[in-house]
Amino acid sequence: MTIMVNVDKSISIGKMAIFLVMYTGEAESLLMKQGRECGYKLLKGRVGSMDSAKIFAAVETAAKKENLIDLRYREEHALYHSLLEAYSGMCRGQEGLGAIMRTAGLVFSIVRGRRLPDHRDDGEWISVALYGNMGAPIKGYEHEVLGLGMNPI
Amino acid sequence: MTIMVNVDKSISIGKMAIFLVMYTGEAESLLMKQGRECGYKLLKGRVGSMDSAKIFAAVETAAKKENLIDLRYREEHALYHSLLEAYSGMCRGQEGLGAIMRTAGLVFSIVRGRRLPDHRDDGEWISVALYGNMGAPIKGYEHEVLGLGMNPI
Amino acid sequence: MTIMVNVDKSISIGKMAIFLVMYTGEAESLLMKQGRECGYKLLKGRVGSMDSAKIFAAVETAAKKENLIDLRYREEHALYHSLLEAYSGMCRGQEGLGAIMRTAGLVFSIVRGRRLPDHRDDGEWISVALYGNMGAPIKGYEHEVLGLGMNPI
Amino acid sequence: MTIMVNVDKSISIGKMAIFLVMYTGEAESLLMKQGRECGYKLLKGRVGSMDSAKIFAAVETAAKKENLIDLRYREEHALYHSLLEAYSGMCRGQEGLGAIMRTAGLVFSIVRGRRLPDHRDDGEWISVALYGNMGAPIKGYEHEVLGLGMNPI
Amino acid sequence: MTIMVNVDKSISIGKMAIFLVMYTGEAESLLMKQGRECGYKLLKGRVGSMDSAKIFAAVETAAKKENLIDLRYREEHALYHSLLEAYSGMCRGQEGLGAIMRTAGLVFSIVRGRRLPDHRDDGEWISVALYGNMGAPIKGYEHEVLGLGMNPI
Amino acid sequence: MTIMVNVDKSISIGKMAIFLVMYTGEAESLLMKQGRECGYKLLKGRVGSMDSAKIFAAVETAAKKENLIDLRYREEHALYHSLLEAYSGMCRGQEGLGAIMRTAGLVFSIVRGRRLPDHRDDGEWISVALYGNMGAPIKGYEHEVLGLGMNPI
Repeated sequence: MTIMVNVDKSISIGKMAIFLVMYTGEAESLLMKQGRECGYKLLKGRVGSMDSAKIFAAVETAAKKENLIDLRYREEHALYHSLLEAYSGMCRGQEGLGAIMRTAGLVFSIVRGRRLPDHRDDGEWISVALYGNMGAPIKGYEHEVLGLGMNPI
Repeated sequence: MTIMVNVDKSISIGKMAIFLVMYTGEAESLLMKQGRECGYKLLKGRVGSMDSAKIFAAVETAAKKENLIDLRYREEHALYHSLLEAYSGMCRGQEGLGAIMRTAGLVFSIVRGRRLPDHRDDGEWISVALYGNMGAPIKGYEHEVLGLGMNPI
Repeated sequence: MTIMVNVDKSISIGKMAIFLVMYTGEAESLLMKQGRECGYKLLKGRVGSMDSAKIFAAVETAAKKENLIDLRYREEHALYHSLLEAYSGMCRGQEGLGAIMRTAGLVFSIVRGRRLPDHRDDGEWISVALYGNMGAPIKGYEHEVLGLGMNPI
Repeated sequence: MTIMVNVDKSISIGKMAIFLVMYTGEAESLLMKQGRECGYKLLKGRVGSMDSAKIFAAVETAAKKENLIDLRYREEHALYHSLLEAYSGMCRGQEGLGAIMRTAGLVFSIVRGRRLPDHRDDGEWISVALYGNMGAPIKGYEHEVLGLGMNPI
Repeated sequence: MTIMVNVDKSISIGKMAIFLVMYTGEAESLLMKQGRECGYKLLKGRVGSMDSAKIFAAVETAAKKENLIDLRYREEHALYHSLLEAYSGMCRGQEGLGAIMRTAGLVFSIVRGRRLPDHRDDGEWISVALYGNMGAPIKGYEHEVLGLGMNPI
Repeated sequence: MTIMVNVDKSISIGKMAIFLVMYTGEAESLLMKQGRECGYKLLKGRVGSMDSAKIFAAVETAAKKENLIDLRYREEHALYHSLLEAYSGMCRGQEGLGAIMRTAGLVFSIVRGRRLPDHRDDGEWISVALYGNMGAPIKGYEHEVLGLGMNPI
């Protein structure tokens, strides 16, 4: 079944990050296009590891490479804390991957812009979403997880 | 812009819970219909409070009233832990609402069924998603949060 | 079936606290007697609540009333941290009772003495064990939990 | 002193796991025998490490080898979460071994069966207990810890 | 003994917040004066409670009243997270006051400005420090605690 | 500007640890001298790492080498828990360094003595303070952190 989802000019930054991390194919492309028209900067990537540091490195590297953050520490700090929030969110109360014998295969999205496109007075925010599967390091022994974080930038 | 999202017979339980908690209007109705055709039991509700216990009560009450869980403790336990995971996920590392002076206005979804519709050997799971806004108890001082949990049932 | 458990003069403080919190009837009485002969001061009590503060109050009050700690802050501090460890242990990663809609009906034990009766050089320690059931505030919707903490005193 | 502990047909799964992890010699053998007569599947093992992942691996491997869980992910998931709860319980609020410069020498027990032998309506549960010593990586600089977890399976 | 502490034009925002929360009398007044000359906005207050929400309310109210933050949510968000970090810091791994039967009597400082006075490129930050005593709700059963948090604003 | 800070015979152990970790040069030397006259044993050191275990090792080694603790486990336990509290405090709610892609460059102080010099009835305590910078493993991408812990010894 095909469901028509309305993504208008008033889509919020969190919805944008969540839909972007979850849609694939044509829906993803259209969403990216619409997001840019709403004034958001955005990107999507992929990372999988038992080593949580690699997830942090992959998201930070992608953000810098695609210019979603500039070179000031305050921008990196906002990204890092949004990512840490998303990571904590997907860990659901007990942080850690390899240390507690689990692994994660993830898609990530980063969206930068207003919290709501018409919030002209509240400046820019940055949001990170992580979606994928977490579980034992055995094929198929895993279930879906999702984490979302955001901070002003 | 209207984006056509494909929700076919192979949609996973987590995706179902996330889309259900986020879609509104016609998209929500179609998703519910498709979800039921995929064999999922599902419901959606609303709760807002500074008192985290009220969020737990609202989700548990809805699940019982709509018969998503039966009367055995093992079913309530699976729901509770999925909800606790979703709650921890939306709290992103530091649990608590009123105790740390913040409040949440949430939509919740509960989905029961196979992790993937064609996973005939792995029995039923239950998933809870929480989506909404969390922030200071001042109108507009809030941003989006999302939490997702799931367990076998 | 009756199992003969050897509780000799070399029983450790943690074992003492765990057996004391779990045994009932004649086994409990014999254990108390043997514990005192090993040089331990010990007590056992009961508390149930959705309000975690009541559990802290019950254990601290019992310890003071039965003179397991004296009036110095350093003694109260050692008891408190042993109790906080036992409480965290029974909460298993996500602290809280009523705030996350769960309740606990507990037996507690407190044991004061050497870590091992023949450890003459390492002074006194205090250990707290909590054992009982935790679950939803619905009769029978609960399972066993156990927490153990200890500190030098 | 020998204490006679009554382990009758109504012993609960948590008590079974705790006694099993703590008893040695003849008491352990009799308890195992009685546990099996009550309908429990059970095993006991040993693991020590500064690397927490090794503790997870040892318990999971033993459970599979002794057929306490079958090959479905939902069974592994129930075991994993019971183990994670026991691990969090023994860590008492601050998780981690080597990362915070401490090590653990542990005995573990796994028990599968009804929560109470006469709870015919609530299906099977699985419980994990960890008992041993945790401390600095220096001989004798350690004290007892205990963790208990359980989930429906 | 009087110790001469050099507080020059290059004092960092964190040092400023820590010294401000700890100094009293003339040292405090001179520090405030020097802090303002370095371009920092700062304030100091007092709050004591078993109810953690009151600590959050006191600090937020003081910041608004003294215009250390403006009316935009992004400013309140930066203050809130700096405060939450300071609160978590003083709780040292296990959050909560009344819920785990402890209380805190605190002095707080808030400092807004550059991370280092000569960091012209990294914009403004906000830092919160909490210093005082935490302990049982019994006079004198308490010891010192300190927490420090900061975020770009 | 030079601020005259009064460090008299009634300075508390926590204040001593905090000032010691933050002062440099002549102020540090005078503080050390005054601390010793108040009856405190104290030391100061430096450690930086992405590997949290190295921070624990550095502080414990310094304490033993300078005889701030003796060879009994109860002394090492008091130091370890004060250090763990300081470490948790500086991590502000989410523990970990390298695992969440951050590093710390720290100064540490250890102070042993009475909580307040005139508290003759409450024995000795030990306090650990950690102060420095934490951030991404990139030069300058870091901000100040502080943690303080203490326990009776």
